[in-house]
Amino acid sequence: MSSMNNFALDAAIKEAWRYQFLTYPNPAVGAAVIVKNRLFVSAHKKAGEPHAEVNALWEAYKAFFDAPPLTISHEIHEFLIKNHNGFFRESNVFVTLEPCSHVGKTPSCANLLKHLKPKSVTIGWLDPISEHSGGVEMLKSAGIEVNVLNDKRCYDLIEPFIKWTNDKFIFFKLAQSFNGAITGGYISSESSLKWVHQIRDKIELLVIGGNTVRIDRPTLDARKVNGKSPDVLIYSKEKNFDKTIPLFSIPKRRVFIEDNLEKINDYKFIMIEGGERLYKKLKNFVDWKVFIVTPKIFDRINYKSEDEFEILHVERRDDLIVFGRSND
Amino acid sequence: MSSMNNFALDAAIKEAWRYQFLTYPNPAVGAAVIVKNRLFVSAHKKAGEPHAEVNALWEAYKAFFDAPPLTISHEIHEFLIKNHNGFFRESNVFVTLEPCSHVGKTPSCANLLKHLKPKSVTIGWLDPISEHSGGVEMLKSAGIEVNVLNDKRCYDLIEPFIKWTNDKFIFFKLAQSFNGAITGGYISSESSLKWVHQIRDKIELLVIGGNTVRIDRPTLDARKVNGKSPDVLIYSKEKNFDKTIPLFSIPKRRVFIEDNLEKINDYKFIMIEGGERLYKKLKNFVDWKVFIVTPKIFDRINYKSEDEFEILHVERRDDLIVFGRSND
Repeated sequence: MSSMNNFALDAAIKEAWRYQFLTYPNPAVGAAVIVKNRLFVSAHKKAGEPHAEVNALWEAYKAFFDAPPLTISHEIHEFLIKNHNGFFRESNVFVTLEPCSHVGKTPSCANLLKHLKPKSVTIGWLDPISEHSGGVEMLKSAGIEVNVLNDKRCYDLIEPFIKWTNDKFIFFKLAQSFNGAITGGYISSESSLKWVHQIRDKIELLVIGGNTVRIDRPTLDARKVNGKSPDVLIYSKEKNFDKTIPLFSIPKRRVFIEDNLEKINDYKFIMIEGGERLYKKLKNFVDWKVFIVTPKIFDRINYKSEDEFEILHVERRDDLIVFGRSND
Repeated sequence: MSSMNNFALDAAIKEAWRYQFLTYPNPAVGAAVIVKNRLFVSAHKKAGEPHAEVNALWEAYKAFFDAPPLTISHEIHEFLIKNHNGFFRESNVFVTLEPCSHVGKTPSCANLLKHLKPKSVTIGWLDPISEHSGGVEMLKSAGIEVNVLNDKRCYDLIEPFIKWTNDKFIFFKLAQSFNGAITGGYISSESSLKWVHQIRDKIELLVIGGNTVRIDRPTLDARKVNGKSPDVLIYSKEKNFDKTIPLFSIPKRRVFIEDNLEKINDYKFIMIEGGERLYKKLKNFVDWKVFIVTPKIFDRINYKSEDEFEILHVERRDDLIVFGRSND
């Protein structure tokens, strides 16, 4: 299988991005299986749930055979190992990240593949965590053809994971109209607002500017998805706030009001929600920028800065969600 | 093959968008073939060159067999019909547009598929030109399983074709920074500028505002791709221009200076290159908008309007190229 023919990997990458950040503390991973001339694509969706390749293999199996409604990873592993009956022998598997060799919350994916014995496994990026790696060797020892691509796009997918595992990962979220307007009420679509709540349910700390708190009086919770509310750092020189603002009365939430960002070092996964002032100040401090761009042009002034970034991915929903890496 | 499993069609759609407008006067079409568990994806790239499904089938064939370096459509058709040897019998073919039944500049694709006899052909959208249609029946009569999806994304791909075939297709092109700045020198990347020249080589008429001509003194040709230069309509109340500006001295080009858009009715494929003033005036007049969005944020003011559009496709190059349909 040559690297010229990785449209299946493209599909796996695209699928993985749909769950970027939502797999915290796990990495975003996608997988595809071509079996009996059909293409099945899936992703890891949430920590504790099946890994990407298990989801894709299971989708493929269920498309051809009657199968019980399993959702728990070790049950799917066991079922497939017992019942695959050689079904995957001529299949080609694509995974954005090396299949895990270790047994954690879920069983080892390399072990599962060893039993299913597909014709080939194409891997976008090797596992950066040494205790997880070894998947390639397990597959090779089972006689499976393994192709390791070192595809930078697969590294991009797991960069947040690498950062929050080793230290911390910080991204700036900014919602804008297509022509750069960011003020004057909600700009994003309802589905983007819901996505922001999904993200808030995963992050540990939300950083926000003092003016936003004073003017918008936001709650900064994850109510749209019944999620948990992150701790909040109000980045402000002025320490005096109206404490009846709902964000101060969320149970178990800690709220800090600071004129510096030191508190960030106590957290692993941090989102900054801000406007022009905070963007100008922190644009080179953050790892990634996430722009929610609405396909509307407003008769309102834009935010301004001097900045470039590398586009990593564009997710098309009702709005565009543009993931960018800060240039150093 | 259920509509749940159309990742191959997704790949075909994405590939077709790479050549949107460049196939003029033909439609943008993509195709994918899954054969022997490998996925091959291609598109129609230029009028007179092979159709999308021929390119994809030929890519697949060449990956498995030695083949002569054919590029001319009827030679590829003939070669495949003579030498396929049942290779495609178990394959699944996906095409964004119904394979043509008629013989035009290139032979009939439905006829080719009839000979190759893939297991299934999945079609995103039926051919809107009655003399071209009939492909589905030809395939079915050969015993091929045919799935017609009526996938709106496949309609979007050919909407320009439908419009320029029946009347005319007009789009507005606007180059902007990520935060909506459009003035102050070149904004787009070199590769986008080259893409604009590729488009200029295909369009028949370029509409531009009088101020742009006066201030930027552009040539408005396709020199970066050695292409032909479109006719130019300078949309301006003021008729007096410095005729030494290079755009006036391109051989064979016709230049109109008008305070109305009637000249547009003499053309089939029209691009408007403009800024804020022209955008405000023509935003509801055009069929599509094409934004070239550079991943840079500038300390410059944005263009403004009140406008919404439907995003049809986002093409990731050095810049984002966002294809949008004007809301009525």
